[in-house]
Amino acid sequence: MPGQKPIKVALLGCGTVGTEVVRLLTDHAADLTARVGAPVELAGIAVRRPNKHREVPAELLTTDAQALVSSPDVDVVVEVIGGIEPTRTLLLQALRAGKSVVTANKALLAEHSGELFEAADGTGADLYFEAAVAGAIPLIRPLRESLAGDRITRVMGIVNGTTNFILSGMDSTGASYGETLEEATRLGYAEADPTADVDGFDAASKAAILASLAFHTRVTAADVHREGIAQVSAADIAAAKGLGRTVKLLAICERVTENGSESVSVRVHPAMIPRTHPLAGVNGAFNAVFVEADAAGEMMFYGKGAGGAPTASAVLGDLVAVARNRVVSGRGPRESAYAALPVRPMGQTPTRYHISLDVADRPGVLSQVAAVFAEHDVSIAAVRQEGRVDDASLVIVTHAATDAALRSTVDKIGGLPVVREVVSVMRVEGEES
Amino acid sequence: MPGQKPIKVALLGCGTVGTEVVRLLTDHAADLTARVGAPVELAGIAVRRPNKHREVPAELLTTDAQALVSSPDVDVVVEVIGGIEPTRTLLLQALRAGKSVVTANKALLAEHSGELFEAADGTGADLYFEAAVAGAIPLIRPLRESLAGDRITRVMGIVNGTTNFILSGMDSTGASYGETLEEATRLGYAEADPTADVDGFDAASKAAILASLAFHTRVTAADVHREGIAQVSAADIAAAKGLGRTVKLLAICERVTENGSESVSVRVHPAMIPRTHPLAGVNGAFNAVFVEADAAGEMMFYGKGAGGAPTASAVLGDLVAVARNRVVSGRGPRESAYAALPVRPMGQTPTRYHISLDVADRPGVLSQVAAVFAEHDVSIAAVRQEGRVDDASLVIVTHAATDAALRSTVDKIGGLPVVREVVSVMRVEGEES
Repeated sequence: MPGQKPIKVALLGCGTVGTEVVRLLTDHAADLTARVGAPVELAGIAVRRPNKHREVPAELLTTDAQALVSSPDVDVVVEVIGGIEPTRTLLLQALRAGKSVVTANKALLAEHSGELFEAADGTGADLYFEAAVAGAIPLIRPLRESLAGDRITRVMGIVNGTTNFILSGMDSTGASYGETLEEATRLGYAEADPTADVDGFDAASKAAILASLAFHTRVTAADVHREGIAQVSAADIAAAKGLGRTVKLLAICERVTENGSESVSVRVHPAMIPRTHPLAGVNGAFNAVFVEADAAGEMMFYGKGAGGAPTASAVLGDLVAVARNRVVSGRGPRESAYAALPVRPMGQTPTRYHISLDVADRPGVLSQVAAVFAEHDVSIAAVRQEGRVDDASLVIVTHAATDAALRSTVDKIGGLPVVREVVSVMRVEGEES
Repeated sequence: MPGQKPIKVALLGCGTVGTEVVRLLTDHAADLTARVGAPVELAGIAVRRPNKHREVPAELLTTDAQALVSSPDVDVVVEVIGGIEPTRTLLLQALRAGKSVVTANKALLAEHSGELFEAADGTGADLYFEAAVAGAIPLIRPLRESLAGDRITRVMGIVNGTTNFILSGMDSTGASYGETLEEATRLGYAEADPTADVDGFDAASKAAILASLAFHTRVTAADVHREGIAQVSAADIAAAKGLGRTVKLLAICERVTENGSESVSVRVHPAMIPRTHPLAGVNGAFNAVFVEADAAGEMMFYGKGAGGAPTASAVLGDLVAVARNRVVSGRGPRESAYAALPVRPMGQTPTRYHISLDVADRPGVLSQVAAVFAEHDVSIAAVRQEGRVDDASLVIVTHAATDAALRSTVDKIGGLPVVREVVSVMRVEGEES
C-alpha cells in the first residue's frame, strides 16, 4: 500500500461540509489508506475567497475551479458548492475526462442527473451522491444496491430538517407558523431566506432523486408535485392533535398500478400521520425514511439529515467507494432508468383528506355535506360532529380518492350556505385507506 | 443486453429462502437483466432430496453440490443451506475457482470469514452476505461502504426475532419465560429446538459479523460474550416495567478507548432499556440496529429480520451487485481487518447494572449494602427503597463499572444476612451512564 499510487482528490467548495471533509481526510488518513488500498490525497480546494479559509492548508487553495478539475493529476472530484452553475459545467467536464465525481448537490441531481449520468457512462466514471439525500443516513446505497433485486413500491420520509423543526415546534407549543419560523431563524434552524426549505423545493429535489432510484425511472424536480408548509395553520395542527395525529412535511414516492399499467406518483406536501406511526416520533432536525418493497417488506432508516459532519461522513463513504473502484479498476452502479414509468399527475393520484368544518347546527347539514362527497364519488371513512353554542364542528376523514375529486369536493363544500368556514384541509398518510 | 453473455448462478439449498430466491429470479427476470446489464440465469439447484422440491424446475435440481459448484458454466454461487460443513468446503472451492459467492450463512461467516475472504482475495472473487444479519434490512452495505469514511463507535441492536418475540410477549402478558417460549413454539416463532436462538448463538454470530465490519477487525463467534434469555424471569420484566424500562436481547459492539489504546467489546445479553428508547418499540419478529459514528452521529435501521421473502430480497440485492461486478469486470469491497483491535474480555467491559433485592426492613440495611458497592469501587446512580409488611424492596441502578466489579458486588451482596433474596440482576443500556 505505501507503494500504491495515491488517489488525488479535487475539492470544490469549502463551507461547513467542505471543511469537515478536509478534517476527516486529514484525521483519518491512515484509516482511509488502509480501507481504500491507496493513500487518498487532496490535490486542491477551489474556493471563491481563499483568504476566508484559514482552517485548511493555504497551498491547496485556488480560485480556478476549472483548472483544478482539468488537472491530469486529479482522479476524483468532490463537489460541495451547491447550486446549478458553474457546478454543472465543472462536473460534466470532470466526468467527460473520466474523473469520478462525489456530490452532495440535490438540486443539480434533481434537474440534470440524466446529463451527468450520460457523461459518466461515456468514460466509465463513477457518480456517487449519498450526501444529497438525508445527510448521513445511508439511503442512496440501500436503494441503488441493497434493494436492486426487489420491487420497491413506496418511499415516504421526512427529508427536510428545517420544516420538521418548525412543524415539531408548532405541534408542541400550539404557536402559529409565522411565530415558529421566526424562532427557527433565530436559533439557526432556518436560513435568512427560508424559501428552499419551507416551500418544499429542497424536499422536492430529494423526492426526485429517491423516486428515480426506487423506480428505475428518470424523475426530475419538475415532475414532483410540491406544497410547502407556509399554509399550515395552528388550526390544522390542533385538528390533527384532536384525532391522535401530527402534521409532517412528507416526501412520498409511490408506484401506482391501475388497470395493469404502472406509473409513479412523486409529491411533497404536509400530511397528517397517526402519532403511533414511526415517522411521528421523528422530531427537530432528524430525518427518517420509510421504504416498502414486495419481498423485503417495510424498512425504516433514521438519522441526522444535515449538518457539516454528518454530510461529510456520507461524502467520505462515497469517496472511499470511488477511490477503491479506481484501485481495482472497477466501477460502481450506473444510472438505472430502464423502466421509464410515466409520472402520474397529482390530480390523478389517490390520496385521503381530513376536512374540518364549522357548520350551522341545524337538521340536514350533514346530509347536504355528505351529498357533495357522494356526488364526487368520494367515500367517507369517519365523521365526527360536535355541537357548540349556535354552530357545530364537523370533521370528516375520507377513504382514498383521486386528489382532483377531493379538491373539487372541498371547493363545493366551501360554497355551501350551511358551511361557515373550512377550518382545515389536510391529506392523511400512514394508515390503511 | 440481449447479446450480453448471461451470468450463471448455482443455488445451494432450496428451503424457505431458496424457494423465494428462485421465485424472485423468475418473476423479476426482465428487471434483473436491465439492472445487471446481462441476463441472470439459474445453472442448477443443489438439494438433498430432489423429489421434495416440486415448486422449482425439475431439470435444474441436482444432489451433487460439488459438481454444480465446480461447473465451468457457473459464475456465481448463492448459498442458503446454512451450517458449517459441507458449506464451508463448497464455498472455499467456489471462491478459489474465481466464482463470486453470495451467502446468508451467519454461523459460517462468524467462524470462518478469514479463510473465506482469503480465498476470495486470491482470485479477486466477490463475497457478499447482506442476508446474514438482520434479514432484509440493508445493514452490511451501510457498514461496509456508506460509513467507510467515518469512525464507528457503537453498533447495538435487536438481531434475533425469536427472542424478541418471547421478550415482547413476557412484557405484555407478565407470563414466565417457559410459558411464553411454549406459545412461541406453538405459533411457529420458535423452532422445536430453540437453543440457537434463546441461548444467543444466532445473535452472537451476527454480533461477530457486525463488529468485524464496524471496527475493521476480525471478530469470531468465540470472541463474543454470550448470555441467552432463559434466565430472564417474570420478576426481571416486572422490575424493568416498574422503572419505565423493558428487557431486550441486545447485540452490542463497542469501541472502548482506555489510556489511549483501543479495544472492542462484543457481547450478546439481555438488558433493560428505557421505554422511550427507539429500540424499545421494536416488537415481535422485527429487527432494528442502532449505529453511532463520530461524524455521522446516531442512525437506526429497522425492518424484517427474517423470513423467506425478506431474506431472499437481501440475497437478490447481493446477486445483482456481484453480477454487475462481473459484467464490468469490477469487484466489491474486500475484507477490511487492518485495524486488528484486541477484543476486550467481558470482565473488563464497562457496563451498568440494575439490582433488585428483598431485604430486611430495619435500620442499617442500606448502609451495609452501599458499603459493598463502595468497596468494589462501584458508584450508585439511583436507589429506591420501599417498605412492605416485614421486609423491604431495594432497587439499585449503578453507574458504569467493569462487569467483573459489578459481578463481585452482586455476589457479595447476595451473601449479606440482611439480604433475603436477589430478585433481579440485569444490565442497563441505552441511557447516559
